[in-house]
Amino acid sequence: MVQSKKDKSEMTLPRVQKSGELAILSTIRARAAGIPHRGVRLGIGDDCALLRLKADEELAVTTDLSIEGRHFRLNWHPPESVGHRTLARGLSDLAAMGASPVAAFLSLGLPRHLTQPGKASGATSASWVDRFLDGLLNLAVEYDVPLAGGDLAESPIAIADIVLTGSVPKKQALLRGGTKAGDRVFVTGSLGGAAAELAALAKSPRKFARKTIASQNSPHLYPQPRVAQGLWLRKRGLASAAMDVSDGLSTDLAHLCEESNCAAEIDAEALPLGAGATLELALHGGEDYELLFTAPKSARLPRSIAGVPITQIGRMVPVRTNRARVTLITGKSSQPLEPHGWEHFS
Amino acid sequence: MVQSKKDKSEMTLPRVQKSGELAILSTIRARAAGIPHRGVRLGIGDDCALLRLKADEELAVTTDLSIEGRHFRLNWHPPESVGHRTLARGLSDLAAMGASPVAAFLSLGLPRHLTQPGKASGATSASWVDRFLDGLLNLAVEYDVPLAGGDLAESPIAIADIVLTGSVPKKQALLRGGTKAGDRVFVTGSLGGAAAELAALAKSPRKFARKTIASQNSPHLYPQPRVAQGLWLRKRGLASAAMDVSDGLSTDLAHLCEESNCAAEIDAEALPLGAGATLELALHGGEDYELLFTAPKSARLPRSIAGVPITQIGRMVPVRTNRARVTLITGKSSQPLEPHGWEHFS
Repeated sequence: MVQSKKDKSEMTLPRVQKSGELAILSTIRARAAGIPHRGVRLGIGDDCALLRLKADEELAVTTDLSIEGRHFRLNWHPPESVGHRTLARGLSDLAAMGASPVAAFLSLGLPRHLTQPGKASGATSASWVDRFLDGLLNLAVEYDVPLAGGDLAESPIAIADIVLTGSVPKKQALLRGGTKAGDRVFVTGSLGGAAAELAALAKSPRKFARKTIASQNSPHLYPQPRVAQGLWLRKRGLASAAMDVSDGLSTDLAHLCEESNCAAEIDAEALPLGAGATLELALHGGEDYELLFTAPKSARLPRSIAGVPITQIGRMVPVRTNRARVTLITGKSSQPLEPHGWEHFS
Repeated sequence: MVQSKKDKSEMTLPRVQKSGELAILSTIRARAAGIPHRGVRLGIGDDCALLRLKADEELAVTTDLSIEGRHFRLNWHPPESVGHRTLARGLSDLAAMGASPVAAFLSLGLPRHLTQPGKASGATSASWVDRFLDGLLNLAVEYDVPLAGGDLAESPIAIADIVLTGSVPKKQALLRGGTKAGDRVFVTGSLGGAAAELAALAKSPRKFARKTIASQNSPHLYPQPRVAQGLWLRKRGLASAAMDVSDGLSTDLAHLCEESNCAAEIDAEALPLGAGATLELALHGGEDYELLFTAPKSARLPRSIAGVPITQIGRMVPVRTNRARVTLITGKSSQPLEPHGWEHFS
């Protein structure tokens, strides 16, 4: 029997009441139950989980590490947002391959105080880890992705490493390499909105403290992974290359060009700006989790896929000596677009 | 052409020379190349890796989180040991299911100084992350397990989350549930040696600083995952249940009893003690990464499997009210064996 999404996300969830690793694990196990798990033969509780694929499928695997102070801040981000973002990052990688989610695995490192119930106005409130799981599992329910395993450890800072697995028919995954000069460049949704919301969050975190429910209009706190759009593109075979915009358009497009051995021209005026975004944020902001993809000139693409707008932002061109990988065109002038998105250790 | 293990582990490896995430990632990519990768259709470099299974196989997946200060200490453990242990923990979980390694994924969070070359006696020496990769990749070469992806981020403390995937014929994986009263209980190798070496390491870390090469006689710094033994047991269908001894025999055997709805009796005098181990360390020490398994009375087991001794340490008995899950028998007396192995947040 299929429950509606609304019913599932409102189900009563057990809470982390007792301390101790086994008690927390048993709560996570109970909370993760109830999500359909067609591809999972064995979930949480043994040395490994066991996944099954159909004979004509490959398994896409991605891991994304989120670290307190680097990817989120305890005094900025509501715990529900941290949980949502943790899973959304992995789902976005599956979307970029056109893969259908099979199962997630969560490794959590937590300071002890984040596992203990809080005190709000005298009453006992949910612990940080419970609220983190609210955010993560609500998104998991929305995408029918069961939590099939993971690890839990005490840690001086909060860290969450998410593994997403997905299935994709053999040889049909959307790859970064494969685009050719002449192909058109597209993005889903809009760019720079996540960076704009992050800037607002940094200015006055208190205004965002009550944003504990996922919303379409909160691209930094609650990014919407483009799973349906990736599946649509893969099924129709229209995209010659695809990836997600996680580090910023300028950096991500440079990767796509490298893997495809191509160059690209981007039309500044065509870029779909997110709420509050400047051109600068749209080019370099990062964490938009939109899909960046290319398609041959002959491909007929709709204006939107599964309710999300599709915008042509430029075209692929041949690589030439003394020309930048990516060129930004504004009116009649053009300039090299250097990758200035996010890079660790830089 | 198959290279000998010795040849492969001594190959010249590129080093992390430049700083910056992309430079480090590209070094890891180069260093990970050259390991056979039959089940990996697409490795490091896209949004996801792509794995392939044979039609009659399932994929075993496990994740293990290692955190500085909890699982290792920078001033105790040589970096090579941290890398080795990171991979060995995951391989041990595959071994416990009787799975054959397919690919590993590594999420690394590192303080900046661990990515920079050190200074030893005036000369530039390898960075911590390079030596960590030495340890991890030498073990990966030994077990033919390619590094197919992962994530890298700057972090205030060092953390390494490893994902191991392995293949196992459908319905043949060794599980924790499945043992019955009357079955005999076995372990591979010896117990308590890892805890004994850890105690010695804590006492005088300097004595261990030069232990940078994996050795059979270093159960804490360089545990040997029992992959061959797990495969042997699974192929012959002799084990009724199996798991690895990671948290300590008392804790792990209690899990196995719970999952199988059984109780167990352990003979104190039969326990194979590792070098320097006391009975206490063998019962509760943890991190031995031996296999704990059960087999029906009728099963004929050899004295050793792939060069590692097998020892019967007790038997499964029915669950009875007022009797402990696990009972320790010493001569003619018996006492309840409470789980006193490792538990986070306790």
